[in-house]
Amino acid sequence: MNFEIEKKEFLRGLNLIQSITGRKTTLPILTHVLLETGKGCLLLTGTDLEIGIREELTAKIHEEGKSSVSAKKLYEIVRELPDQTIQIQKKENHWITLRCGKSLFNMAGLDPEEFPSLPVFQDEHFCELPISLLSEMIEKTVFAAASEESRYHLNGVLFLQNKEGGKERLRMVATDGHRLSLIDREAQKVRGIEKGVIIPKKGVLEMKKVMVDKEGIGTVAIYFDATHGFMKIGKFLMIVRLIDGDFPEYQQVIPKENDKKITLNKDNFYRCLRRVSTMASERVEGVKFSIKSNGIEFSSYNQDFGDAREEMEVVYEGPSLDVGFNSRYLMEALNIIDSEEVLIEIKDEGSPGMMRPVPPADPPDQICIVMPMRI
Amino acid sequence: MNFEIEKKEFLRGLNLIQSITGRKTTLPILTHVLLETGKGCLLLTGTDLEIGIREELTAKIHEEGKSSVSAKKLYEIVRELPDQTIQIQKKENHWITLRCGKSLFNMAGLDPEEFPSLPVFQDEHFCELPISLLSEMIEKTVFAAASEESRYHLNGVLFLQNKEGGKERLRMVATDGHRLSLIDREAQKVRGIEKGVIIPKKGVLEMKKVMVDKEGIGTVAIYFDATHGFMKIGKFLMIVRLIDGDFPEYQQVIPKENDKKITLNKDNFYRCLRRVSTMASERVEGVKFSIKSNGIEFSSYNQDFGDAREEMEVVYEGPSLDVGFNSRYLMEALNIIDSEEVLIEIKDEGSPGMMRPVPPADPPDQICIVMPMRI
Repeated sequence: MNFEIEKKEFLRGLNLIQSITGRKTTLPILTHVLLETGKGCLLLTGTDLEIGIREELTAKIHEEGKSSVSAKKLYEIVRELPDQTIQIQKKENHWITLRCGKSLFNMAGLDPEEFPSLPVFQDEHFCELPISLLSEMIEKTVFAAASEESRYHLNGVLFLQNKEGGKERLRMVATDGHRLSLIDREAQKVRGIEKGVIIPKKGVLEMKKVMVDKEGIGTVAIYFDATHGFMKIGKFLMIVRLIDGDFPEYQQVIPKENDKKITLNKDNFYRCLRRVSTMASERVEGVKFSIKSNGIEFSSYNQDFGDAREEMEVVYEGPSLDVGFNSRYLMEALNIIDSEEVLIEIKDEGSPGMMRPVPPADPPDQICIVMPMRI
Repeated sequence: MNFEIEKKEFLRGLNLIQSITGRKTTLPILTHVLLETGKGCLLLTGTDLEIGIREELTAKIHEEGKSSVSAKKLYEIVRELPDQTIQIQKKENHWITLRCGKSLFNMAGLDPEEFPSLPVFQDEHFCELPISLLSEMIEKTVFAAASEESRYHLNGVLFLQNKEGGKERLRMVATDGHRLSLIDREAQKVRGIEKGVIIPKKGVLEMKKVMVDKEGIGTVAIYFDATHGFMKIGKFLMIVRLIDGDFPEYQQVIPKENDKKITLNKDNFYRCLRRVSTMASERVEGVKFSIKSNGIEFSSYNQDFGDAREEMEVVYEGPSLDVGFNSRYLMEALNIIDSEEVLIEIKDEGSPGMMRPVPPADPPDQICIVMPMRI
């Protein structure tokens, strides 16, 4: 193997790879990047067995071949090099030599044949979606996914085809058992998600990161089989192993009888929660809503520091009601509601509260649910 | 106690206080800020017993008095408030009530009489120095101070009056036993540092931070007694408890016979070290200098990843020499040398190396020393 590549091009590719390759792993080759020469290009592959990515870079190939070296170390070296051409040549015992300007590096490698191969994909199965659409759906759900190892089937985002209202829609749902976020968007069908797939949190976050990086390309090609999701943006490929488990019956959690409806200015509500939550206890983060006709009083109490309260005027004619919610969950949900106003729907102090954008779509295209708490 | 203060003014003062008040402390009042009304002003005081600070803020006083509440919590609350007037009133049991817009906070307090009093200072003892000068001297030494609890007399910066060359100079020196940084600057005498005082690292770093914050004021007033340093910038006061110990005989460490002199372009040298040090082992961070006539080869070796080398052309006619240094120490020293070129002075592979700005002053006004290492 012998090739030349520009520093900037190489760094761009290594930056994506090194972020997913394993750091602490018992299998050393998973900390490596596979360098493979292609036709007038260099292929970089990295995987932690959960996520695999492959990037095609422009390079001048003098001699074909492949090598496997530490992704993190190669990234650290290339980052420090001047903006010049880098020359890489394979030597004996899987070592490579890297030259750039007056610098020379010899890097220890492993047998590239030991590098795990990525799952095979079928080019004809890919469906195209706008990057902005997939990106938005991930952003508006992933924050609600669980991070606990014990509930691995909640550590991801459910992605499925949905036909409510007669239109083809894509749906994403995430929940950690305390709150839930759901979004529907009209789009063409995506192969393999008729019954729903659970994409792990780390996978959707990496997908989102790559889409931000490659936003200019505009579209992402995607499909799923029984075990993996496949995503292509331009010449970049990402493969994510799906979570094998049953997603909870989230539709049973969506409240149907929340008859107490209050519309609030989103920014004022958010800032009020930030102020009042300074006095919420760090463990439970609870804020109490005392809803009366034409006003809500938000309050919190902290055993060590004191208490806080603030009133907002609202249009509300129903019966008085006290209910508590986790303030952080509310604020994280408000963060992903784009409308100027937000609709809060509550039933009673023991039932989940629901928030939606204003005006609310019918059928709903975005729902945030937060479980109540005793305060 | 009853006063009104603008949110921005209050936040500015609390920001300085909350950065020094203790977080994990067995004495709860050390996590507090003391609020005291003065003549048309509010005094804020905070201390962790090592550092004490007092700030005077513009406020409208309706009723005199003092209170003590959690500095961190008060800062968190004020940060979230709208840009409006805040009204604070003392209630029973040392509680205070804070009102702003539609928000109301009740904060638990402690008896303000229990708040430790700051050491007393003598206004006539202060000497004025340019903020830029004191700031520069701290920046160019503090990085070399130790951070190990076991060597507490090295965990600070030596500050003393120096008369070398017949001129009145201020000197700062810091060392962790592996490297040393010294700077001299011409300035008027400062009271109390004839024999030298050791200011703890945390103290000089807080002094530096405040000086950056208040750079516009231009001058800082300062003096020392046997146990404390006193610093005033405008109406801001900081008192730092000095380290009670003997600073090492640093002058014996300054090499006198380093006859091998090499001048290098500072930026090229720095970037070369960054590249070569990517292959230095994480524990020892060593880079080898192989000095030959008209060239230095820098190299490093890592048991896991491989090796690196790079040559720089230099004007050098002496005997060949191999010597190793910690690359991070060299780079941190280069960071605080302002000249375009740097002079390296070496004796042999077992003696400390010295770096100075170019052209070097006589007597020297800045010296960085790095101990050699076997590589």
